[in-house]
Amino acid sequence: MKLYCFGESGNAYKAALALALTGSPWEAVYVDFFNGGTRRPDFRAINPMGEVPVLVDGDRVLTQSGVILTHIATVTGRMGGATPDEQAEVLRWLFWDNHKLSGQAGTCRFLMNFAPADKRPEGVVPFLQARLKHAYAVLDSHLSSRDWIVGPSPTIADLSCCGYLYYPEPFGFSRADWPAIDRWLGRIAALPGWKPPYDLMPGSPADRA
Amino acid sequence: MKLYCFGESGNAYKAALALALTGSPWEAVYVDFFNGGTRRPDFRAINPMGEVPVLVDGDRVLTQSGVILTHIATVTGRMGGATPDEQAEVLRWLFWDNHKLSGQAGTCRFLMNFAPADKRPEGVVPFLQARLKHAYAVLDSHLSSRDWIVGPSPTIADLSCCGYLYYPEPFGFSRADWPAIDRWLGRIAALPGWKPPYDLMPGSPADRA
Repeated sequence: MKLYCFGESGNAYKAALALALTGSPWEAVYVDFFNGGTRRPDFRAINPMGEVPVLVDGDRVLTQSGVILTHIATVTGRMGGATPDEQAEVLRWLFWDNHKLSGQAGTCRFLMNFAPADKRPEGVVPFLQARLKHAYAVLDSHLSSRDWIVGPSPTIADLSCCGYLYYPEPFGFSRADWPAIDRWLGRIAALPGWKPPYDLMPGSPADRA
Repeated sequence: MKLYCFGESGNAYKAALALALTGSPWEAVYVDFFNGGTRRPDFRAINPMGEVPVLVDGDRVLTQSGVILTHIATVTGRMGGATPDEQAEVLRWLFWDNHKLSGQAGTCRFLMNFAPADKRPEGVVPFLQARLKHAYAVLDSHLSSRDWIVGPSPTIADLSCCGYLYYPEPFGFSRADWPAIDRWLGRIAALPGWKPPYDLMPGSPADRA
């Protein structure tokens, strides 16, 4: 499988983690996002939504991290939840993550670290951080009495929700503030095959410095 | 099936539309959101995420509109896509909607119409409207050469993406600006059983005026 990705993308990291942790053979195709790589016609031909990640598996071209994660779980038979109830619960957390957690965290981190100074409208970062605090509280509370988001073992729900939380750039999230999230991130990082984002995918701020 | 909802919620409207358009028997349970209804302990016991909609179907309690739409399509065998490829494409648009369209439109509409004046941080509405413009452009372009988002007939992908687009309150979206979206909204509204949000669910700004 080929994953179109770049190191800074937390949504791509979710997919890369799922490939790595299920032991799937895959290769990374670097998309030079910061030099317009997702706006180029050849990339738009692959994904008209203009977004990374894109997973190419044979003749299937999949986009949106939630779809890619679901596909990897289906083809490997791993990390998708053991029962229909668990699978529905996994899907719920994938949507919640896209809607409430990663959807906001990705924007907030981008504005704080990668956007040109004149493209950082005042007031937006504090607004997003306040919304994110609610999301962290929901996740921390959920994880306070359990090791994994759904069921007794790690699933793609964990990989989706952790997508932005290992990055070193500041965006208002500190593991020290959320002890249950902190311990859970430690458990994920202890899984065989885990690597931090900039080790798992090509491209990083250091490369561009 | 019971749907916990209120008229102003576009995410609840998606679920209500799916129930109505599949001819499913359902009843609405009004959640008094604007008087703290989603923060009450009895509601949090049903949904610890504190969000509407919630669908109760027998002993199953489902939250997140994308999960509810998928469930309704599965149990009715309707509007879920006819082939595995169509089903994957439906899921992709559900995630895209949560991430890029409804996720931003809901927040923008809330800030512009329902938030107290001192809870409307400057700069956030223009920022969200600029992001939404990209989403409208993606959707309008996709619909310029087809009647429905996925395949030859309406699916839950259509119901998800249209969730906020029939509301009368201003949030920076005008059907006149997006001709393909405008025609598509007309097609959905012509389906048997369609009603606008405040006719399909209990509660509206008029009730609270």
